Amino acid sequence: MTATVVSRNLTAEAAFTAVKAAVEAGAEVGVAVNAAVTDAGGNLIAFLRADGAFLPSGKIAQDKAYTAAGFKLPSGALFDALKGEPAVLTGITTQPRVAAFPGGLPIWDGPHLVGAIGVSGASAEQDDACARAGINAIGLGPNQE
Amino acid sequence: MTATVVSRNLTAEAAFTAVKAAVEAGAEVGVAVNAAVTDAGGNLIAFLRADGAFLPSGKIAQDKAYTAAGFKLPSGALFDALKGEPAVLTGITTQPRVAAFPGGLPIWDGPHLVGAIGVSGASAEQDDACARAGINAIGLGPNQE
Amino acid sequence: MTATVVSRNLTAEAAFTAVKAAVEAGAEVGVAVNAAVTDAGGNLIAFLRADGAFLPSGKIAQDKAYTAAGFKLPSGALFDALKGEPAVLTGITTQPRVAAFPGGLPIWDGPHLVGAIGVSGASAEQDDACARAGINAIGLGPNQE
Amino acid sequence: MTATVVSRNLTAEAAFTAVKAAVEAGAEVGVAVNAAVTDAGGNLIAFLRADGAFLPSGKIAQDKAYTAAGFKLPSGALFDALKGEPAVLTGITTQPRVAAFPGGLPIWDGPHLVGAIGVSGASAEQDDACARAGINAIGLGPNQE
Repeated sequence: MTATVVSRNLTAEAAFTAVKAAVEAGAEVGVAVNAAVTDAGGNLIAFLRADGAFLPSGKIAQDKAYTAAGFKLPSGALFDALKGEPAVLTGITTQPRVAAFPGGLPIWDGPHLVGAIGVSGASAEQDDACARAGINAIGLGPNQE
Repeated sequence: MTATVVSRNLTAEAAFTAVKAAVEAGAEVGVAVNAAVTDAGGNLIAFLRADGAFLPSGKIAQDKAYTAAGFKLPSGALFDALKGEPAVLTGITTQPRVAAFPGGLPIWDGPHLVGAIGVSGASAEQDDACARAGINAIGLGPNQE
Repeated sequence: MTATVVSRNLTAEAAFTAVKAAVEAGAEVGVAVNAAVTDAGGNLIAFLRADGAFLPSGKIAQDKAYTAAGFKLPSGALFDALKGEPAVLTGITTQPRVAAFPGGLPIWDGPHLVGAIGVSGASAEQDDACARAGINAIGLGPNQE
Repeated sequence: MTATVVSRNLTAEAAFTAVKAAVEAGAEVGVAVNAAVTDAGGNLIAFLRADGAFLPSGKIAQDKAYTAAGFKLPSGALFDALKGEPAVLTGITTQPRVAAFPGGLPIWDGPHLVGAIGVSGASAEQDDACARAGINAIGLGPNQE
């Protein structure tokens, strides 16, 4: 029996750098966003809400990160994958902590899922761009390699 | 006055066998699933999450089993039964612990509902097939007889 | 910047073996227990409720495992560590999912926390003994080495 | 009629600096802590979990900050203030999000409550010292002046 498997997780330093970069990316285009980074198990490591960012979007940013970490794909892609099946779409999108819309991206270190980032507070495209900026800042990527 | 009725429930041994068989059925087709078995009262007896299975699907598997046990029908059939009545559909599918999409099956021992199984982590068809494999492994069925 | 750290987690096979062994250890001394195993991040991997085991103890077993994984020590030791400080004791023991009483043990693979097991349904001593039996069955230990 | 009052709140920059300083203060004495900063309304602005910090303490840090902001006093002082009145003590300490034990401090800018910081993961004294370090780093104080 193989009792354990090796996994990999983001450090606090990386998570902190990512949320800061995501919020700054928002500021550069004039939007105030919330950014959250979780580990691969969906537990929050770092969070930052920009001055003036929408309050409910703080939880949404955390939910997007949880969703991207839990399903190992962009939170918006989850919706796209399910939109042809109304029962499944309704069932999954109404789960607590699941946020199946753009702004959440998994974070991969080569073949290892190491966490996820969620951004909320601006348009879908802007949230997504801020999430990418957060991942770029730590030298990792949103796709498995 | 008739004060009591006889009921019938799955044993721990059967529940354990069923979740194991469901997870193995997933592995055989290359998917990592979560499987949960409840008694007829919707209380969890056994649960198993395959290595690498989606984390949010753990709760969803439990919700599907609860839904199938509670409504005494396949979790996907619940959605179909309600889709002509939008108010009812919304009201029921947004209830906590209700998951009205494929992957949950009631477990019958002849005329008796004895529990339910829920599987989540793959496609609707695959989840459903894994749930059936779980029931088959204990010699019972998903239909009342 | 170090972006990621290596960690280690229990496999589904090990978790499944452990909950089965814990329930069997209870049966050997005539008690019906619930057993739960989580990964190092506190997420449920496997669960089993013995025939006739107390229903509320199912959640308690899960909470004990979460507590042992989260605080990296036996759930009963958490209470002992805090009992001289009433404010802290009250504050921590009333947190959701925290169960600071015997029956939860962390699972270590040498220097790595890889998960935890929680058992509930019998006396404190019996719950603890069943948890140890679960860990023994997978060749790991409740102490960091 | 006076329809509005002026209030004052921490900036994102200050909150971010404070959680970083609190986590670093923990690292200097060899403990891994979670740190959270809220605004005066108890809404999370910034959060950081050190590598290896206890997972349940992430929520506790947030609860301590909410408690300090909400009651405008150190979270440990709340317990002391109520301990002569058991009914009140029980009633308040069992409220969701209330954590009445050391590690949470209000943040004042002269006469204005502008937010709060909560730290959790080490001893009561260490959590409190880390919270103070967080406030010091932004040039504000834990007492109204």
